[in-house]
Amino acid sequence: MELLKQKIREEGKILSSEILKVDSFLNHQIDPMLMQEMGREFARRFQGEKITKVLTLEASGIAIAIMTALALQVPVVFAKKKRPSTMSGEAYFGRVHSFTKQEDVDIMVSATYLNQNDRVLIIDDFLATGEATRGMIEIVRQANAYLAGVGIVIEKAFQSGGQALREAGVRVESLARITKLENGKVYFEESEREVDEEGTK
Amino acid sequence: MELLKQKIREEGKILSSEILKVDSFLNHQIDPMLMQEMGREFARRFQGEKITKVLTLEASGIAIAIMTALALQVPVVFAKKKRPSTMSGEAYFGRVHSFTKQEDVDIMVSATYLNQNDRVLIIDDFLATGEATRGMIEIVRQANAYLAGVGIVIEKAFQSGGQALREAGVRVESLARITKLENGKVYFEESEREVDEEGTK
Repeated sequence: MELLKQKIREEGKILSSEILKVDSFLNHQIDPMLMQEMGREFARRFQGEKITKVLTLEASGIAIAIMTALALQVPVVFAKKKRPSTMSGEAYFGRVHSFTKQEDVDIMVSATYLNQNDRVLIIDDFLATGEATRGMIEIVRQANAYLAGVGIVIEKAFQSGGQALREAGVRVESLARITKLENGKVYFEESEREVDEEGTK
Repeated sequence: MELLKQKIREEGKILSSEILKVDSFLNHQIDPMLMQEMGREFARRFQGEKITKVLTLEASGIAIAIMTALALQVPVVFAKKKRPSTMSGEAYFGRVHSFTKQEDVDIMVSATYLNQNDRVLIIDDFLATGEATRGMIEIVRQANAYLAGVGIVIEKAFQSGGQALREAGVRVESLARITKLENGKVYFEESEREVDEEGTK
């Protein structure tokens, strides 16, 4: 998605060969107009899938998930990182290791909001090692729901998460795939630009 | 806002005389169409205020904040509950006690995303004792930004937060004001219904 790649080029901060910070429009400050465009793009890519629920993980997945869900006209469920005291009853769990925060967190979804009739689209802001996505897939599996696919804003294609998911048969759609972070420059997968150009014709 | 009150009547779970759970459309599963309507309503109420930033607190404030920001065509900044390892530099802090989770949390906003030229609208899902709102107001004050007001989805008017804020001169707009939770029933402030009816004429 060219609009997103342009934003990453202009505003992304490369902290190392592995870490790209996009706090100005995605992870701290959020650009709602860009989120709306990206939500529409996910809805377009998964339009034949009869999605019934969008699943994401708090906190930074919520903005893009809600815009995708609005475009699809279905509810969002966000997995929580801690079981609040007001939540009781049956629930599904997944475990996620955060490399950024250096900690393991259990994520959970109440069984009330996912079931075997659901066709789920998982949406998240980043895909790197795939930890968060795998935690959410585990939740979809526990609910006996159908996993229609995974929509990612920024995939770090130089890390293993995306490849492992695709090899496992999961449909992964990323709006920007980064192949390299080097000398303060972001490199995007070339093939994707072609897809974008066809997409906008 | 009648649409919201109807949703609360139909789907809200009253756990005690103080706790209302709205996990089916606001705090765990989210109804994006309702969020969009509420975001438009906040934008309408604050339309003369030349808002430049919407400020909220992760995680459950993000959905309604992003829809408000979309309607106003301005960015959202969400205060974080923990300083991530990728965040460095000057920041503003507030302290919030969560009665639901029984813990104190420091909330923070990077100084990059709020400054003295900003006209800030604080948006949050609930207002009860006002802890979270006060933490965000402290951040606005540290940034020397102008506080245009506070927009709340559900105000528990039987708790002290809303009154204290209004007495301190803060403009607080709540889409539903609950005066009592009793015998499995939600009581809304009467005057608000009249406002709603005028508002929809």
